[in-house]
Amino acid sequence: MPLDLPLADEQPVERSDAARNREALLVAAQRLVDQCGVDSVTMDAVAQEAGVGKGTVFRRFESREGLMAAVLDRSETAWQGAVIGGPPPLGPGAEPMERLLAFGHTRLRLNLTHGALIRAADRSGARSFAAVSFAAMHVRYLLTQLGVTGDIPLLATALMAPLEVVILEQQAGREHIPVERIEAAWDDLVRRVVNG
Amino acid sequence: MPLDLPLADEQPVERSDAARNREALLVAAQRLVDQCGVDSVTMDAVAQEAGVGKGTVFRRFESREGLMAAVLDRSETAWQGAVIGGPPPLGPGAEPMERLLAFGHTRLRLNLTHGALIRAADRSGARSFAAVSFAAMHVRYLLTQLGVTGDIPLLATALMAPLEVVILEQQAGREHIPVERIEAAWDDLVRRVVNG
Repeated sequence: MPLDLPLADEQPVERSDAARNREALLVAAQRLVDQCGVDSVTMDAVAQEAGVGKGTVFRRFESREGLMAAVLDRSETAWQGAVIGGPPPLGPGAEPMERLLAFGHTRLRLNLTHGALIRAADRSGARSFAAVSFAAMHVRYLLTQLGVTGDIPLLATALMAPLEVVILEQQAGREHIPVERIEAAWDDLVRRVVNG
Repeated sequence: MPLDLPLADEQPVERSDAARNREALLVAAQRLVDQCGVDSVTMDAVAQEAGVGKGTVFRRFESREGLMAAVLDRSETAWQGAVIGGPPPLGPGAEPMERLLAFGHTRLRLNLTHGALIRAADRSGARSFAAVSFAAMHVRYLLTQLGVTGDIPLLATALMAPLEVVILEQQAGREHIPVERIEAAWDDLVRRVVNG
């Protein structure tokens, strides 16, 4: 075996160190987003929060935009994981209606944060097709479980539409409607669609 | 009376000439949008369609972006006029449910065109607050007429949300769902919300 090839049991150790490092920085950035809002997340603040040098943050993410994109991806992935295999009522095990309401409430709060993250990541307003299609598949599945008949794909879209970033930012941001009221109105919409 | 002040009956004639001129150019541009799509609307094409020189188009609208913004405003104003005082079922005189369905169908088709117009006008994706709030007020009024109880402002938003440009472009543009199917699904949503 040539000596200049990396040993199979060597590289994974290095990789997992890098992954832990990266994860610690993303956790720190997410904590700042949750506590102080997206605007407070500078490369300096993240370095300080994670207890590393600013250079380390730049080495891992290149720019504030890169860091914000990584926080966004991590948040979306964590939410999808919770839907697929997390505890009920969002995850499996609860009744379909309970799961649907938990889907809406978590998606609503996530989208309100994500709007700011998307802007900080300097992306177009459009979310990735993968994220949209995961949520759509999940709502279609729950509507079918609930015995809803009709155009299930488009009814699913109609339930997700009021949770779009552009709508939520108008309501919560410009009209100052409390999130709890938006949530209650969404629950009412779901009941009307499911019972109708 | 000082002679250098314009006479009251002189200026309106000039103004109405200018207004007619402007209207003819906007009608020509709208016809091109309807027939060939927004992309075919160049200053040259509009000049040719209206039978005037290209310089006239530039004098009135300065740029393609200015022209597109004017076409957008004209289209929105015409639609609002039809809702307020046009023939039924969109205008007054029809049953509230008929009016609500006509509202959705016309808004859906308008928003599909408007997405392209907004991009051609190089505006942000957000429509003017005035346009959003006119539509919201109208839907709230019809829901009240229909005897719907609940959080009327947010139920109105839930009905309008699936007609947002970002949703329609995903459905009609990327998923190639026929407009008739989107329309039928919206009608179903309305019935569920009103009856629920």
